[in-house]
Amino acid sequence: MIILGDWGTTRLRLFLMDGPALVARADGPGIGGLTSTPADSLRAAMQPLLEKSPVSEVILCGMAGSRHGLREVAYADCPSDCTNWAKSALTFTLDGLSVTIAAGLACDDLQETPDVMRGEETQIFGALDCHPELRAGDHMLVLPGTHSKWVHVRNGVIQAFRTWMTGELFALLRDHSTLAHVGAGEITDVKYQAGFSHGLARTSTGDLGGALFEARSAQLRRAKTPGWGVGYISGLLIGKEIADAQTRLGATAEVSLIGDPVLTALYQQGLGQAGISSRQMEGDQLAIAGLRVLCTSMKN
Amino acid sequence: MIILGDWGTTRLRLFLMDGPALVARADGPGIGGLTSTPADSLRAAMQPLLEKSPVSEVILCGMAGSRHGLREVAYADCPSDCTNWAKSALTFTLDGLSVTIAAGLACDDLQETPDVMRGEETQIFGALDCHPELRAGDHMLVLPGTHSKWVHVRNGVIQAFRTWMTGELFALLRDHSTLAHVGAGEITDVKYQAGFSHGLARTSTGDLGGALFEARSAQLRRAKTPGWGVGYISGLLIGKEIADAQTRLGATAEVSLIGDPVLTALYQQGLGQAGISSRQMEGDQLAIAGLRVLCTSMKN
Repeated sequence: MIILGDWGTTRLRLFLMDGPALVARADGPGIGGLTSTPADSLRAAMQPLLEKSPVSEVILCGMAGSRHGLREVAYADCPSDCTNWAKSALTFTLDGLSVTIAAGLACDDLQETPDVMRGEETQIFGALDCHPELRAGDHMLVLPGTHSKWVHVRNGVIQAFRTWMTGELFALLRDHSTLAHVGAGEITDVKYQAGFSHGLARTSTGDLGGALFEARSAQLRRAKTPGWGVGYISGLLIGKEIADAQTRLGATAEVSLIGDPVLTALYQQGLGQAGISSRQMEGDQLAIAGLRVLCTSMKN
Repeated sequence: MIILGDWGTTRLRLFLMDGPALVARADGPGIGGLTSTPADSLRAAMQPLLEKSPVSEVILCGMAGSRHGLREVAYADCPSDCTNWAKSALTFTLDGLSVTIAAGLACDDLQETPDVMRGEETQIFGALDCHPELRAGDHMLVLPGTHSKWVHVRNGVIQAFRTWMTGELFALLRDHSTLAHVGAGEITDVKYQAGFSHGLARTSTGDLGGALFEARSAQLRRAKTPGWGVGYISGLLIGKEIADAQTRLGATAEVSLIGDPVLTALYQQGLGQAGISSRQMEGDQLAIAGLRVLCTSMKN
């Protein structure tokens, strides 16, 4: 059996695989929240899986390959197909186990502004493997999250991408700003939903820095709840990302959304309001698919 | 003698005044950082001043009048001149001392989006008192800070205003985000200045959520320093505020900048690059002037 892992900034997810079958899962801390060395953290997280079965190798993607990760892996340059990406992976031995870390991707040519990703590329190559129709022609893939990525794929090659800070800005504003109160804003709250819709609608009339303060002034002057305010911030940020991406990358009629289903559902609502059709794909499943593709590519 | 005070979210500044002469200063925690009741915090901060001289009254502005402050004071509505504003102040007795808290201002009519300020109005009425030329015709006053205010004054009346979250976004991104490292970004750092200029220039080509990530990618791919990154974030946010304010409020050829001199100098640079001339006015001095105007108005 092998262990596949997606090791991001906020968490480590490990999957024990018997061929295509997922046998067990285990979790650990993200690269941004380590309390021991990366190697010790990985050992501790793998332990329950190693007790279930002998393992021949470990394949990881994400921040595991950053300079604060297990081993730094150089970025592969865009445009990149799956074969080029797989060549840039780094393999070494840890405690007698073969460990491979996937490369991230860098994109330096668009408007002379550099951009980078670590982890999303694995989900994308997973999506291309699972959905053959994405391997022909032009497609826009959107991966919402801490750093939301808009990715242009042509004939199975990742051409270029752009990062929006949406998820990180949202978390900062929800948890650390004067706009909301800690604990406010359950996404299932009907007032959150009302605020989200109001934020999406505000996108067309307000710039971000100017429109954000309404989350607070509406609480003071319109008797809105903190939950409404958090929903408003979410709607405003997602709406702006979609509008700005259309301006910056060109209008698109259809996108594929890859990520956490709760988050991709919010993006689907925002995209729909902007007249863009979308379909949702589950991020964890595509990470597993991408890591399996990497494993296969390295053996060919 | 009297005590004048500007009690904001982040700090309390008290001024012991003998007529127009500033005799002594004292500081205390802001309304957002209290460790005891507002009344006890005020007592503790006033103590060194009361030991110097008997005091007949205390005049405060800012978050002292918010719902988390000493006493909640209702907002005065815009348009408002100084007389209307002064009428909305609240006076009560604390430990035998007459305490007055200035009203904040609310502005509800612009595009149906409510907006509020507490404290800036006092600096503005101070500026109108100190600079008679601002009392005739139309003027745009800009008060940078945690919540930057753009204020339209016509013939001495505050007509309307708009808030940008610039200062708070900057602090969140500098102190809590993945874009910088704690302690990075001294404003005197030559690389901070280079980043600031790059951020101002980026304003014209990038939207905020999309351009912010360059603070990180430029460190990873262009060997920029964290200090450069923090300067870049500052330049981008200030540049966007200026550009967006021109779009939202109409083009203006000249503004008066009120606030901390280090901050108003950065805005002057950004405004200059946008072809807008400006002059700087020191915020603390105008807060004292405004509180003195309030004191005089109440006695007439």
